[in-house]
Amino acid sequence: MLGNCMENVRKNVPLVHNITNYVTVTDVANMLLACGGSPIMSDEPEDVEDITSICGGLNINIGTLNQRSIEAMFRAGRKANDLGHVLLLDPVGAGASALRTNTAVQLMKELKFDVIRGNISEIKTLALGSGTTKGVDADVADAVTEENLEQSIAFVKAFARDVECIVAVTGAIDLVSDGKTCYVIRNGRPEMGRITGTGCQLSGMMTAFLVANPEAKLEAAAAAVCTMGLAGEIGFSYMQEQDGNSTYRNRIIDAVCNLTAEVLEKGAKYEIR
Amino acid sequence: MLGNCMENVRKNVPLVHNITNYVTVTDVANMLLACGGSPIMSDEPEDVEDITSICGGLNINIGTLNQRSIEAMFRAGRKANDLGHVLLLDPVGAGASALRTNTAVQLMKELKFDVIRGNISEIKTLALGSGTTKGVDADVADAVTEENLEQSIAFVKAFARDVECIVAVTGAIDLVSDGKTCYVIRNGRPEMGRITGTGCQLSGMMTAFLVANPEAKLEAAAAAVCTMGLAGEIGFSYMQEQDGNSTYRNRIIDAVCNLTAEVLEKGAKYEIR
Amino acid sequence: MLGNCMENVRKNVPLVHNITNYVTVTDVANMLLACGGSPIMSDEPEDVEDITSICGGLNINIGTLNQRSIEAMFRAGRKANDLGHVLLLDPVGAGASALRTNTAVQLMKELKFDVIRGNISEIKTLALGSGTTKGVDADVADAVTEENLEQSIAFVKAFARDVECIVAVTGAIDLVSDGKTCYVIRNGRPEMGRITGTGCQLSGMMTAFLVANPEAKLEAAAAAVCTMGLAGEIGFSYMQEQDGNSTYRNRIIDAVCNLTAEVLEKGAKYEIR
Repeated sequence: MLGNCMENVRKNVPLVHNITNYVTVTDVANMLLACGGSPIMSDEPEDVEDITSICGGLNINIGTLNQRSIEAMFRAGRKANDLGHVLLLDPVGAGASALRTNTAVQLMKELKFDVIRGNISEIKTLALGSGTTKGVDADVADAVTEENLEQSIAFVKAFARDVECIVAVTGAIDLVSDGKTCYVIRNGRPEMGRITGTGCQLSGMMTAFLVANPEAKLEAAAAAVCTMGLAGEIGFSYMQEQDGNSTYRNRIIDAVCNLTAEVLEKGAKYEIR
Repeated sequence: MLGNCMENVRKNVPLVHNITNYVTVTDVANMLLACGGSPIMSDEPEDVEDITSICGGLNINIGTLNQRSIEAMFRAGRKANDLGHVLLLDPVGAGASALRTNTAVQLMKELKFDVIRGNISEIKTLALGSGTTKGVDADVADAVTEENLEQSIAFVKAFARDVECIVAVTGAIDLVSDGKTCYVIRNGRPEMGRITGTGCQLSGMMTAFLVANPEAKLEAAAAAVCTMGLAGEIGFSYMQEQDGNSTYRNRIIDAVCNLTAEVLEKGAKYEIR
Repeated sequence: MLGNCMENVRKNVPLVHNITNYVTVTDVANMLLACGGSPIMSDEPEDVEDITSICGGLNINIGTLNQRSIEAMFRAGRKANDLGHVLLLDPVGAGASALRTNTAVQLMKELKFDVIRGNISEIKTLALGSGTTKGVDADVADAVTEENLEQSIAFVKAFARDVECIVAVTGAIDLVSDGKTCYVIRNGRPEMGRITGTGCQLSGMMTAFLVANPEAKLEAAAAAVCTMGLAGEIGFSYMQEQDGNSTYRNRIIDAVCNLTAEVLEKGAKYEIR
């Protein structure tokens, strides 16, 4: 059924408004196009309400936030809520600075999100008020592993219930839960950590998946995570000896571009807990 | 003669100042380098007059505009006009928000442009005060087709006369007119729509072409459009089965980098109306 | 020993805070990951002190500077100095505008840098108050050549003594000096000039090299320059006939990603003067 979620993206071509960092923004745009969506970026407060109104979803990513873009996040987010649009939060670097942590917390208070997607350290920061975010990467001490899987699932479920939205924690093992059900996903490759922005790209793509699958948001979120991870595996299989992280970046987006629902169905490695 | 326009770019290495969006800016810079120009970016009001003064042309692109960059557009534009530099407007998303439409309209009022380049929905918005821009993409309902070609040519010519500058409408069929003559160009590939920023890249390149060909601006604008479309065809011919939109993005810039005047002359598909 | 500097980067995974331009920022991030470091970007004054505190070094690049990011540069720079972190200045476009020149000069006055890295025109502007920067590229009239090598070395050494930090002038021949010793480096390819941001990428990487080699900063700076140039040579050796500057961009980052200490030791072409 995950394949079905992807087919709906390609059929509906959801327009996604992104307020996102300037480090990975090009790749977010190309990933949205690769999966079948359509991207638009705008972070000027006077512009964002109009832009978000013509879209189906809004992806708020707090990397390289500034006072202007923070205001834009709140204005666009309220408009998206008013219109019943899909709303996603990517709390990049929550735990790394007071401004980032506070902005994420405040956004969660004032807006109703459909999904929060981050690495485990960012999510722990939001849930527990602590976490040891290593810059924009998760701390190994926080990592979801086979050993702590039970507790990790319980943690993600409890946080999802608490914030009343889907929570997607991505890393070597990904957990996607709405508070009741939890997808445990094992797609992906460790080499993806050597590319900037795979998380940001996933957030953009996930927003498109939710817009195109309003009746099955949890499944859509899980489908986006599997798509990204599987693309990481397929892209890696085409790497030559001289290729490195820059070519890998292209190969992953290419793999999403060429991915079919059938291949996604077969390649998705997940269990439901 | 289009080949000659390209040779002049390579001979003169025109320096182009770009006030452009942060989504596609890297590709704009690399495309300018690929065609033989030299890019510089600056969008701080206190910086832009100095920067534009040392350049030969200014490319104003309103994607991801903000209050600061809007002020920079006006200041840089006035300076470029004072110095007789080439000035191009790319009205990204005109029709998608009031701020974008109004900014484009105001820029056209206060500044004297050499070219306005956009998709058909953006140009219709500027010409008719309406258009159904789908985010940053043209609406299919607006598209220039073989069926409506006569009216489309008449529309572009009339708008060019009205605004007294060259108008370049790009899409499956491209129209480039100075009000009297209209180039109808049929280079390109539909797959280019799956890459973010081919329009922005073309605007940067077109500015360089005009700077290097001050006596033949209409032809230079048409040559830039043919170069982009032909590069899309050549780049596509090198695509492997596993390649997707990210590799295609690289292949198009590569193709411009390697394009010769001779290949451009042979490959350009246009008629003059 | 240069290989040792690279190994230390891979062992220590230095976290580098970058306040840098939005043109080349993605490539700076991917280059930092390629060499073994970890990037984080932040240019909001309220955010930068926290962010820089968790890093080991700060890379200040003045391309596309604005009033907000300038304030961030000073605040982050002072914090980095207080904490004894590595601090690098990349004076992009100094000489091209009053704001850029003045900002670079003021940063040098108020902050204590470990390295200043730029092209020869930018460095001449800072040293002599003049230079004929061609946009963001060096003027050929300024170039370091075999003919003026003696004077160029003397100039760089004198400037390094004057500003009391390492000075790295990069171009066809690179000079890296602490005022006493000067590395003269002949790695690299002229085709690197057709890619935007190789200088910015080098500045990010160089910051990581210094953080990981606190006892051998001059050698670390030279190692970063050799790494970049050698990657340019290796990347070029994999270019196919149809490849151009966009593919070359990927190949250089890939080459750094795959570079070993042994290959660096063998491929580095330098003499010490």
